[in-house]
Amino acid sequence: MRVGIVGAGQLARMIALAGYPLGLEFVFLDPAKDACAAPLGEHLHGAYDDPALLARLAERTDVITYEFENVPAGSIAWLTEHCPVHPNSRALATARDRLHEKQLLGSLGIETAPYRTVDSLEELQAAVVAIGLPAILKTRTLGYDGKGQAVLKSSDDLAAAWQQLGGVPLILEGFIRFEREVSIIAVRDRQGECRFYPLSENTHRNGILHLSLSCPGDALQSQAEDHAHRLLEALDYVGVMALEMFQAGDTLIANEMAPRVHNSGHWTIEGAVVSQFENHLRAILGLPLGSTAARGHAAMVNFVGELPEPHAVLATGAHLHLYGKAPRVGRKVAHATLCADSAAALQRKLAPLLALSAHSSC
Amino acid sequence: MRVGIVGAGQLARMIALAGYPLGLEFVFLDPAKDACAAPLGEHLHGAYDDPALLARLAERTDVITYEFENVPAGSIAWLTEHCPVHPNSRALATARDRLHEKQLLGSLGIETAPYRTVDSLEELQAAVVAIGLPAILKTRTLGYDGKGQAVLKSSDDLAAAWQQLGGVPLILEGFIRFEREVSIIAVRDRQGECRFYPLSENTHRNGILHLSLSCPGDALQSQAEDHAHRLLEALDYVGVMALEMFQAGDTLIANEMAPRVHNSGHWTIEGAVVSQFENHLRAILGLPLGSTAARGHAAMVNFVGELPEPHAVLATGAHLHLYGKAPRVGRKVAHATLCADSAAALQRKLAPLLALSAHSSC
Repeated sequence: MRVGIVGAGQLARMIALAGYPLGLEFVFLDPAKDACAAPLGEHLHGAYDDPALLARLAERTDVITYEFENVPAGSIAWLTEHCPVHPNSRALATARDRLHEKQLLGSLGIETAPYRTVDSLEELQAAVVAIGLPAILKTRTLGYDGKGQAVLKSSDDLAAAWQQLGGVPLILEGFIRFEREVSIIAVRDRQGECRFYPLSENTHRNGILHLSLSCPGDALQSQAEDHAHRLLEALDYVGVMALEMFQAGDTLIANEMAPRVHNSGHWTIEGAVVSQFENHLRAILGLPLGSTAARGHAAMVNFVGELPEPHAVLATGAHLHLYGKAPRVGRKVAHATLCADSAAALQRKLAPLLALSAHSSC
Repeated sequence: MRVGIVGAGQLARMIALAGYPLGLEFVFLDPAKDACAAPLGEHLHGAYDDPALLARLAERTDVITYEFENVPAGSIAWLTEHCPVHPNSRALATARDRLHEKQLLGSLGIETAPYRTVDSLEELQAAVVAIGLPAILKTRTLGYDGKGQAVLKSSDDLAAAWQQLGGVPLILEGFIRFEREVSIIAVRDRQGECRFYPLSENTHRNGILHLSLSCPGDALQSQAEDHAHRLLEALDYVGVMALEMFQAGDTLIANEMAPRVHNSGHWTIEGAVVSQFENHLRAILGLPLGSTAARGHAAMVNFVGELPEPHAVLATGAHLHLYGKAPRVGRKVAHATLCADSAAALQRKLAPLLALSAHSSC
């Protein structure tokens, strides 16, 4: 079986590494000549909407998936007519537009931050009146890792934020007071069976994920699973999905979903029985899902902008994952995962690893 | 860093899959056009003693290793002059000749089966008188998976065995009465640090490994480690080594060593903290060794001659490893690994997996 992946970055790379033991081959579509998954399969080198390359991708593969939500909608629509594509185009369209995403979450009874759409400075002013400050102005589409966002603290910030982001559809979101940020990685197969990994507790730095801790046995696990389950069913979703949430008291407030494997699930490679990458492939190929149970406790640390020194990382007892990418400001280039039998033992092992990533930032 | 591997079969493939997360690239030398590791790197396609390809291998890589012991000695000698090669040529030369291997084991105080070299029918007759029957006549070099061997049960078998194997240097080995076959996977790094995986208990079928069980906490672990440690030190060995042994009462009798990652260590991918494949790479690259501790209990089942049905294997809860090889009689094409928290739980899960491999044989 041959799997097509739109995008050939580190997520595609880790999917492919999980797929070789299943006997799979891979074809990637990516405009970057040095795309880091490319050595693991056939690289169709060109634009995501190149008709000839899309045709070749569909012709060469048995199933197609993608590693990021900003794939041109027209490309996925065309591919869907010529090859099975998972997750489906509705899931992608929902995830790539913060308004559609929030509307779906709301219709499923899943709480989100208050929001208003904003298409002019006047609408922004009205939205601030309705929602209050502080608030965050975001582009409805194409945002990631904190990009396409502006925090509004006082009414003096409105004009500058509008100047920075205006001209594309925007959304104003109210601030949530939260105790922690968590995410759940969920997977649904072609027969509708769903499985859920233990919650990840996430810490960001400069808008980019810095640290994820697995939370086996978390008190909010069933609430998170319930939210994710509703989304998976509503979208007739096939594959791995991530749902990011804020914990406010005993309530999980949905922030955003990602229709793909997710950085906050990288710890599942060593910290769960079957990783998110392998379960994504099993789901889209119609193979039985693997166990999502945790193997002890795990912590994942991202390295951003600067390559870690392998010797130093491995000396902490961590598992190292270099992505084969040249370092660049703000670019995720590696992660490392620590495992331990208890949360306390994990915390003790974590300090030396965190020290190594202290200088790694955007 | 770029690693050269002589051979591009499933062992090279699993080494490469373990190496990508360390940021490594791979160059393989293998005469088979469809060598199953080839998609994971640059494939130098030609004979193991092709001077131009050997030169290219040395020129393109930072360190060279091999996946089988029948690499031409001249090739390794040449490579050693141009690039670091691990394990070293003495380890390879010792492992590829049963006589040299037994002489070294004996000099280290490690018990082996009684043996005599045999270079003529007369020497075979004399060896049988000295050792007794039953006994096994083996080629000194180039044997694997039970090939190059003949069992002698009565003096009537001598002429036929000589006709089958004679003409190359042979060795007659006395039969060992044993309770079980075990192996230890050991690793030694460039600074001389050694680590040892828990024993594997191995069952063969038609001369080919069929089942390996990890044996954390085995009573004979320290004896096995002591044997392996002596070998590693004597050979100034760098990398992963396997030592196969027979258990007779409380004694481990050495059978043979393999100067490479080994089939009886495949369970370490899921069943140990860091796999034999990654630790082999860490050792030869001068990186800190990873933990060889077991994660629970593990069982590995080989699939030989016939491809397993992925759906059925995954439905047992096993991890599947297809090698990307076309099936052929007697050819190892895949393995599957089961993990459990206890030996008893593992045995319960194992029966359905063993049933799937029942028809897989040479």
